[in-house]
Amino acid sequence: MKNRRGDSETRGHGDKPSPRVAVSNRTRVATITLLTDFGTADYFVAAVKGVILTANPHARIVDITHDIPPQDIEAGAFTLLAASSSFPAGTIHVAVVDPGVGSARRAILVKTREGYFVGPDNGIFSYVCERSEHEGATPELYHLDNEKYFRQPVSQTFHGRDVFAPVAAALSMGVEPQRLGTEISEIVRLGPLRTTTSRDGRLMARIIHIDRFGNCVTNITQNDLTAKMIAGGATLAVKGKTVKSFRKYFGEQSRGNEKLFGIWGSAGFLEIAAANASAAKLLKVHRGDAVIVTVKSFDRN
Amino acid sequence: MKNRRGDSETRGHGDKPSPRVAVSNRTRVATITLLTDFGTADYFVAAVKGVILTANPHARIVDITHDIPPQDIEAGAFTLLAASSSFPAGTIHVAVVDPGVGSARRAILVKTREGYFVGPDNGIFSYVCERSEHEGATPELYHLDNEKYFRQPVSQTFHGRDVFAPVAAALSMGVEPQRLGTEISEIVRLGPLRTTTSRDGRLMARIIHIDRFGNCVTNITQNDLTAKMIAGGATLAVKGKTVKSFRKYFGEQSRGNEKLFGIWGSAGFLEIAAANASAAKLLKVHRGDAVIVTVKSFDRN
Amino acid sequence: MKNRRGDSETRGHGDKPSPRVAVSNRTRVATITLLTDFGTADYFVAAVKGVILTANPHARIVDITHDIPPQDIEAGAFTLLAASSSFPAGTIHVAVVDPGVGSARRAILVKTREGYFVGPDNGIFSYVCERSEHEGATPELYHLDNEKYFRQPVSQTFHGRDVFAPVAAALSMGVEPQRLGTEISEIVRLGPLRTTTSRDGRLMARIIHIDRFGNCVTNITQNDLTAKMIAGGATLAVKGKTVKSFRKYFGEQSRGNEKLFGIWGSAGFLEIAAANASAAKLLKVHRGDAVIVTVKSFDRN
Repeated sequence: MKNRRGDSETRGHGDKPSPRVAVSNRTRVATITLLTDFGTADYFVAAVKGVILTANPHARIVDITHDIPPQDIEAGAFTLLAASSSFPAGTIHVAVVDPGVGSARRAILVKTREGYFVGPDNGIFSYVCERSEHEGATPELYHLDNEKYFRQPVSQTFHGRDVFAPVAAALSMGVEPQRLGTEISEIVRLGPLRTTTSRDGRLMARIIHIDRFGNCVTNITQNDLTAKMIAGGATLAVKGKTVKSFRKYFGEQSRGNEKLFGIWGSAGFLEIAAANASAAKLLKVHRGDAVIVTVKSFDRN
Repeated sequence: MKNRRGDSETRGHGDKPSPRVAVSNRTRVATITLLTDFGTADYFVAAVKGVILTANPHARIVDITHDIPPQDIEAGAFTLLAASSSFPAGTIHVAVVDPGVGSARRAILVKTREGYFVGPDNGIFSYVCERSEHEGATPELYHLDNEKYFRQPVSQTFHGRDVFAPVAAALSMGVEPQRLGTEISEIVRLGPLRTTTSRDGRLMARIIHIDRFGNCVTNITQNDLTAKMIAGGATLAVKGKTVKSFRKYFGEQSRGNEKLFGIWGSAGFLEIAAANASAAKLLKVHRGDAVIVTVKSFDRN
Repeated sequence: MKNRRGDSETRGHGDKPSPRVAVSNRTRVATITLLTDFGTADYFVAAVKGVILTANPHARIVDITHDIPPQDIEAGAFTLLAASSSFPAGTIHVAVVDPGVGSARRAILVKTREGYFVGPDNGIFSYVCERSEHEGATPELYHLDNEKYFRQPVSQTFHGRDVFAPVAAALSMGVEPQRLGTEISEIVRLGPLRTTTSRDGRLMARIIHIDRFGNCVTNITQNDLTAKMIAGGATLAVKGKTVKSFRKYFGEQSRGNEKLFGIWGSAGFLEIAAANASAAKLLKVHRGDAVIVTVKSFDRN
């Protein structure tokens, strides 16, 4: 968590980034990021960008990724969490992993200190909300029900183009969230990202993401597992195997030169990695699999 | 067709977008889109962008896709059709699927109400021309034969970088089409996109595209097949199977809960889709395969 | 080489592009390119972009590619060479293929007439340095050791985000290289790109890259192998086969209509290609394999 808090502190600009975006419309570039499961072979991503640029020719559009596995909301939620903390405060993040498109699921807007998050109400913003709450700031939530800001006619299969893109463009032009929708108090949430502690004092964690290199990202933060605990002989149990080795960087030589090792990843979480191999394949793990941390002492300092 | 006409109306800015681009050169951002079969692993796409930015550092470049199957002109033509209608009028679209590069095939520029289309004369602009003509506007056609606007020396294997990119950049700076080439009256065209009607009154259609999810895009529009016809019991025959079910959105529960169903896609065409599966795989269809529509009544209202 | 020299001449703006970038900060757009092996499915690329835009909201970011094979420094070096020559002088190129991240390997900046190159000191800038030297300009080399310009805290697994991105952003804001690091005289270099000549007068070359189409890029330039030598009956020996045919463009009909042929590629090097097939598969060649050129006469004119 230290890493993420550090990020937040360098990022901190108080609670209200929106007026700054609105005021500086002419001199400042509004950034809109896109995260989808559309792939890049079809016309879908371009259609979203075209709609944004039609409304706001000065918007800067940045792709986070379009290769979220189809309909995998949890993967989208994690990738958004990991990417969004590097963007300027006030950035508008559009996330469209949307199996329920056309159904009664709501279109929503979430406003945190980080910025604005626009997409379907299906849990994809769970982790950015959880981080915001952990930092002491309750997100503002809006149901995007003002159809005046939609592209007409609204296709029932492509809200990315017809709902989320034009709303994001309106935000980037300085339209206030209150005009785009109705404030609400709850949105759909995935299970929490945080670890729990068992009665016998072991840290109960899990794999929350597996990246392209096969590194297994856990939900363990430096708040859960301090440098002292690691130095004192912490171990990770996962899929019947025990990881006892920790490295500071991938190429480091570790004691006993074990194939599997723990390493602090760049998203602020402990990862289980393997030397020049896929840890996920070696361990045969999948997202959601349990990781149990045993430490000799919970003394933190 | 209603969808596409709707697009055109929201987009409509009269017949002459080019002076607007030229006049507003300093204050307005010129958008150049790229559609190619270059893939994204090599240096090809970046070289095209570098040449554009060398000539016009203020151009905004948007990727449509670089994953058109190699040399698949028809796939390029469809994707360009589906993407371009979301962009602002006056956008410059560069499309390079170019098996004939270096041969005698011409470099061309097509100007429609939508914008400018720059690329090889091999049929890739067929569908955007057909849409323009259907909307009552004859496209302007130019043979790009003014080598003054090319990057020298012109490689015989990479006109994307040496011909199309610098011409697009010149357009984005306000250079008139007449200076870039010679007006012509014909370009290479693919077969028409429109459906036909058989003597016994059945609508003869075909699969024009299969997307990454396996949805099969037909050339059937809402002008061909109205809501009333569907409500009256229209059916689709494709590869010996009959599709009798229609959905408004992917997650909708349909009568009888049939695996295959028709659905209006976001490009304005009827698609044949499957619940959580690839319709293309289930049907074993390929692009070009026939789809025959039988309706009980052609009464439209 | 003629091609590459031609590029360099159109590009030439004297030796000192940096003041121009600094002075024109408000009116001119600074371009930053990215070349990595991160892939596009994870959050890595977006994090780099977010950091750049946080520091310089006006930077223009262009992807060269993120699909360099993981840890393949030589592929990165070639792709950077081929792409960078199309960009405006003064462009900032960030290249992150970085198996040694977190270890003692240095972060470096290379300044040539082409622009700035920021990344790890592992050979990835070898070929752009070699080209610069061949054109008579010794690159300026800097060890990026001023941590003031890094993003804090610096992750030991992601210098793309925490070191190279903020340094590139600083450069784009006009910070001089001297403030970012310490001038050095040597960097890690790969083996030279140039061909050699055997005692019996044969040109000893090699495959330096294989593109997605299976075209085999050699290190042979038009300086090594002139049009007259080709017309006089030059042949290429590779993996026990002899290539005797040359084409000007891919679709050209060549004498005898041989499947394999030589062709001048768009990066300025001779490529071995195959008609509608992968030359690399037909020849079973890999990068590094020898290509021996036999010519009847080395008379150049």
